[in-house]
Amino acid sequence: MRASVHRFTMRDPGDVSQLAIAIAKGEVNPAHIVAFIGKTEGNGLVNDYTRGYLVLSLKLLLAECLGTTQQEIAASVIFVFSGGTEGVLTPHYTVFCVDRDVPASAGGPKRLAIGRAFTPVPAPEEIGTRVQVEMVAKAVGAAMAEAGIFDPADVHFVQVKGGCVTTEQARAAFARGARLASGDPNKSMAYSRVAGAFGVMQGLGEIAADAFDETAFFAKPEIWSGRASISSGIEVAENEVVVFGNAAGWSSQFVVAHHTMDDALDINGIYACLDALGIAARGDNRSVGLARIACALVKCEPDASGQMRGQRHTMWQDGDINAQRHIRGAVGGLVAGVLGDTRIFVSGGAEHQGPPGGGLLALIATVV
Amino acid sequence: MRASVHRFTMRDPGDVSQLAIAIAKGEVNPAHIVAFIGKTEGNGLVNDYTRGYLVLSLKLLLAECLGTTQQEIAASVIFVFSGGTEGVLTPHYTVFCVDRDVPASAGGPKRLAIGRAFTPVPAPEEIGTRVQVEMVAKAVGAAMAEAGIFDPADVHFVQVKGGCVTTEQARAAFARGARLASGDPNKSMAYSRVAGAFGVMQGLGEIAADAFDETAFFAKPEIWSGRASISSGIEVAENEVVVFGNAAGWSSQFVVAHHTMDDALDINGIYACLDALGIAARGDNRSVGLARIACALVKCEPDASGQMRGQRHTMWQDGDINAQRHIRGAVGGLVAGVLGDTRIFVSGGAEHQGPPGGGLLALIATVV
Amino acid sequence: MRASVHRFTMRDPGDVSQLAIAIAKGEVNPAHIVAFIGKTEGNGLVNDYTRGYLVLSLKLLLAECLGTTQQEIAASVIFVFSGGTEGVLTPHYTVFCVDRDVPASAGGPKRLAIGRAFTPVPAPEEIGTRVQVEMVAKAVGAAMAEAGIFDPADVHFVQVKGGCVTTEQARAAFARGARLASGDPNKSMAYSRVAGAFGVMQGLGEIAADAFDETAFFAKPEIWSGRASISSGIEVAENEVVVFGNAAGWSSQFVVAHHTMDDALDINGIYACLDALGIAARGDNRSVGLARIACALVKCEPDASGQMRGQRHTMWQDGDINAQRHIRGAVGGLVAGVLGDTRIFVSGGAEHQGPPGGGLLALIATVV
Amino acid sequence: MRASVHRFTMRDPGDVSQLAIAIAKGEVNPAHIVAFIGKTEGNGLVNDYTRGYLVLSLKLLLAECLGTTQQEIAASVIFVFSGGTEGVLTPHYTVFCVDRDVPASAGGPKRLAIGRAFTPVPAPEEIGTRVQVEMVAKAVGAAMAEAGIFDPADVHFVQVKGGCVTTEQARAAFARGARLASGDPNKSMAYSRVAGAFGVMQGLGEIAADAFDETAFFAKPEIWSGRASISSGIEVAENEVVVFGNAAGWSSQFVVAHHTMDDALDINGIYACLDALGIAARGDNRSVGLARIACALVKCEPDASGQMRGQRHTMWQDGDINAQRHIRGAVGGLVAGVLGDTRIFVSGGAEHQGPPGGGLLALIATVV
Repeated sequence: MRASVHRFTMRDPGDVSQLAIAIAKGEVNPAHIVAFIGKTEGNGLVNDYTRGYLVLSLKLLLAECLGTTQQEIAASVIFVFSGGTEGVLTPHYTVFCVDRDVPASAGGPKRLAIGRAFTPVPAPEEIGTRVQVEMVAKAVGAAMAEAGIFDPADVHFVQVKGGCVTTEQARAAFARGARLASGDPNKSMAYSRVAGAFGVMQGLGEIAADAFDETAFFAKPEIWSGRASISSGIEVAENEVVVFGNAAGWSSQFVVAHHTMDDALDINGIYACLDALGIAARGDNRSVGLARIACALVKCEPDASGQMRGQRHTMWQDGDINAQRHIRGAVGGLVAGVLGDTRIFVSGGAEHQGPPGGGLLALIATVV
Repeated sequence: MRASVHRFTMRDPGDVSQLAIAIAKGEVNPAHIVAFIGKTEGNGLVNDYTRGYLVLSLKLLLAECLGTTQQEIAASVIFVFSGGTEGVLTPHYTVFCVDRDVPASAGGPKRLAIGRAFTPVPAPEEIGTRVQVEMVAKAVGAAMAEAGIFDPADVHFVQVKGGCVTTEQARAAFARGARLASGDPNKSMAYSRVAGAFGVMQGLGEIAADAFDETAFFAKPEIWSGRASISSGIEVAENEVVVFGNAAGWSSQFVVAHHTMDDALDINGIYACLDALGIAARGDNRSVGLARIACALVKCEPDASGQMRGQRHTMWQDGDINAQRHIRGAVGGLVAGVLGDTRIFVSGGAEHQGPPGGGLLALIATVV
Repeated sequence: MRASVHRFTMRDPGDVSQLAIAIAKGEVNPAHIVAFIGKTEGNGLVNDYTRGYLVLSLKLLLAECLGTTQQEIAASVIFVFSGGTEGVLTPHYTVFCVDRDVPASAGGPKRLAIGRAFTPVPAPEEIGTRVQVEMVAKAVGAAMAEAGIFDPADVHFVQVKGGCVTTEQARAAFARGARLASGDPNKSMAYSRVAGAFGVMQGLGEIAADAFDETAFFAKPEIWSGRASISSGIEVAENEVVVFGNAAGWSSQFVVAHHTMDDALDINGIYACLDALGIAARGDNRSVGLARIACALVKCEPDASGQMRGQRHTMWQDGDINAQRHIRGAVGGLVAGVLGDTRIFVSGGAEHQGPPGGGLLALIATVV
Repeated sequence: MRASVHRFTMRDPGDVSQLAIAIAKGEVNPAHIVAFIGKTEGNGLVNDYTRGYLVLSLKLLLAECLGTTQQEIAASVIFVFSGGTEGVLTPHYTVFCVDRDVPASAGGPKRLAIGRAFTPVPAPEEIGTRVQVEMVAKAVGAAMAEAGIFDPADVHFVQVKGGCVTTEQARAAFARGARLASGDPNKSMAYSRVAGAFGVMQGLGEIAADAFDETAFFAKPEIWSGRASISSGIEVAENEVVVFGNAAGWSSQFVVAHHTMDDALDINGIYACLDALGIAARGDNRSVGLARIACALVKCEPDASGQMRGQRHTMWQDGDINAQRHIRGAVGGLVAGVLGDTRIFVSGGAEHQGPPGGGLLALIATVV
């Protein structure tokens, strides 16, 4: 098996011309595409339709290339888009391909491995509960199996996209007497992310199933995974899981590493991730090493205390710019400065994903 | 003479309690205060009144402490506040004091020197022209003289605050047939900044008076100073100039250094400034060195081309967040990450102040 | 007794020159000022400091005119400022004066009567509870008595300004085991408004004390007052109450009327209020009647259902503009269009103040 | 010929289900659709992609229904979407259909007539010049002819959508020595609107071709059309013109009327438009009359002077909310209040379209 990673930019959220050209040139085989992860230039909040616009545009392209329907594309490809290219960030998306016809390399070094799994569709009353946790945990195991990863330590990044309860669903659920984690779509999205994060932790064996209960959700930010990146929204009903790791039997030139960021200023967390890949990122002669980076994935969040390293920040109190937009701009500026590149996936909403007030970083790079 | 540097934070733009306490404790002598430079938590745009609110609050405090009027304070102290604490930035202000009664140290090493000068009030038709350039250039020389700096190479940062043409002034000027660089207050502010920047360049001998004319304003961004930081607004009529350098005859424990940033990702420009101060800022044991920093001053701007290092940014096209807010958040995040501190003055509107699309950084630190 | 109403505008939130001139000319006696109600040009949200800036500027002016301190001014004058002059609204403030030395007119028609009262400072655990309701109810009675209003039907507008629980207070309260309506400052502000609204209802006899309990707060929007306008914030600790009505014994040329708005489109509610004052506001010859209006006070809120008259609105989902800013702009545009004047106090956060999704309007006008 | 008008709402900019249902039920014949005019819930500024998302979604639907391509749809149907549903406004779109197979009614009253025309594609150097004016003027004549309108007084609303110069086109044009009205896309959009407005005036005979030259553009706001509504953008290259009027030979139950608004408070301008349609809109029994309205189209703009009726507004100085968003919210609130409906097309950028600081209104209603 061979995984490949292709990064494209766009003029606007409806522009998929770079991928179209790559497909036309044979550089990307559309049948191999398993997932997209990217940033669009909306506000990243509820009324950000740049994500849906890009998804529709990509589905149309793939459906045309593959002679299939948009529905079939949606059932087989995972789309994870985060809105908000604050500050220096560049709208872009990374296409992940898996060619399963490449024979397994025997005994070679571990290389980038990608596996996916889908859960059943949770009932509204299961969103944000242990039921969803179990679903995701099981899917993480299935995705690891598909990726041929047997040691959880070889997993470096797990992207989950989960559903949420819409206003209509909440109304119907309440009508039949159901009890919901939250009937508010926005809060339901947060609950779905939290359940996803615990699901990843349980699936990776970071936490035992009997070591926590639902009262830990939100309340114990000290329980977190350094490899979980969860997004949620009305675009999907089930939970979609993509696992990125390094495994034997894969033959690409890519590897993946990750590191936590203790807070939004934790530059050494970024350097540590680069060190893990053997990339010399300090000093003037860093361009050769940095050119190896194929994809940068970051989760972060504004410190809930309203302070960082003892000083006040104003992100939570700003009525004009949402706190998530603030933190994406600041952490994006820091990571882009260290990497010398603005094509970085920076996503907020990092409950239980990295240390509280901090976050996590995964880098995919070519080997030397 | 002895210069001192005091950094305070505030709960809100009307909170000057930290300075009040420092004065009460005798840590700051209000009669020694020559300038304030700081960040307030507004939007940093035309309708940002957090700057005026803080200035009023500080004037009231000083007037009360010194038994004088607000007007007298305004005539003798320079207030430079930049709105916008995007991302991780902390609202704060730095108080610069000069005690002229400390006898000059003979033969000691150069230490932080501060000098000020005020220009006459330019006529509306002089704003944004060579006349204003000449005024500022002359004031830079006067401020250097006050600071006892004889070699322009010893100057590391020049803060200018200049006036602009208000709508009323423009109307009156047009009525008497005057010709203005711009009758629009916002554009007039930009013209005032540009004239200030050329004034600093001429005053520091970076450019000869006959080497440029007004057609270079805005049009030749390749002409810039790495030490000029200009702000403008209706708060002042004349140009107010503060020069920061290192000079003999000053006896504090502070020194100042500066460096340019080639673009908003230029992390090595920041490290170079730290290197100039002998501060070890890389690796895990950096807190001792970084603790020496007393004040960080940054100018930056979004790349006018809409691209950075070959990739598109969206700052200029965002109808929800002004481009200056974007760039302050991103560069603030980067500098704060490198310095491990969020109390950083980051100001936009950097026409001819640092390389186009980049900016400049000055750091004041204690000596070891 | 004689009440007078003076409306001023300002260039910016620190500009109190119009009032200063009116005082200098003898048109306003500063010793007679009992309250200010106005709009400033901030965002009207937590980080809106234009309100504090204007309060400070007004206090300085009055303290100077009266030869007293800012603290004394704060203890005797009520300041109610709402941020946000969205759309066509003009930053302005209305000064309410009471001259108690004017002998009571015997037997004349009822005229504008103003009374004030202050409650004790509620403990943090009392904010948003029945205790605060009782306090406000009692203060409404006291203010009515001061105004010489004996029939609650003669009250047309009750402005309450209440405190809230700050983060520091919440922390201290939790530390000593107290239970709060909410420890979140923003939610605490909403609770304080709700308790204020119920306090007004109880004080005016609109609802009996035993006809509701705290479970009605927020949950029963069908319980509302058409005369209560509540704001809250950290600026005050106690509850400050101003009652506006018509009463015998007052001799000014002003009267007040009010009407509810059933929803944000309820133009007939506005016309009904004008009808109550005998102002002909329809057709082309309306300027004479409309010129009688001295002050317009509006409360409103976005319909919580996300719909108005069966159609979706997007106010609650907009991540770029807060819902309160949306509704103030729309209702402000409507009321300004009907009144032909942009100096209108429009305030959001109308829980239990007017019908849900609607609001209320009070107009003070001169008699013919 | 028969014109029909169908108004639909959507859950989000990708939701075209109401039209799909209407087509499936036979209520709308997709082959008869000539134009869409609507509001989407973006910010209405450069980075508003909700317009493109809706256009793509509608094209896909029509292409599927008609068995044709998106390109063919684009060539035959006009899409005019304005972003920004500030305040009470509802995202919606109106579908305009023309059935040319309905035999002309002889001698009946004039009824809604719709005609379209497309101009050639202007060169970049022709955008914003007399050349574009001539193109549009000629297209207005062609559209009137298609609509069978012979007397310009029977035209009540002309919607033009014009192109603009993109950054790439500007670069290429400058490279070959061309001179542009503006090389800045945003300014080019404004120039295109202005040329469109003059084109409509000339086409309708409101102004003679020799009575103005290009120096009047922007500079003489007193030259305006009360029937021109122009939008521009990169979505089209040529100018697309739709004329709405009343004409003999059309057999629908719809008629159209228009009126100017002298300023953003001009409620009597709205009532005058209703009066022209014989709709009783004042008083309590207005729902029957108002139910006749099928479509409401409004253009407006913030007064350039910064004042309205002698009072300051803050729209131009707000760094957080664009002035066009402010004015749409306020005028939308006023028109919605008068009409009792939130499905109103309110568009800004009204240079030379209605009186300066005011705007215009067109209403399509059924006859009694």
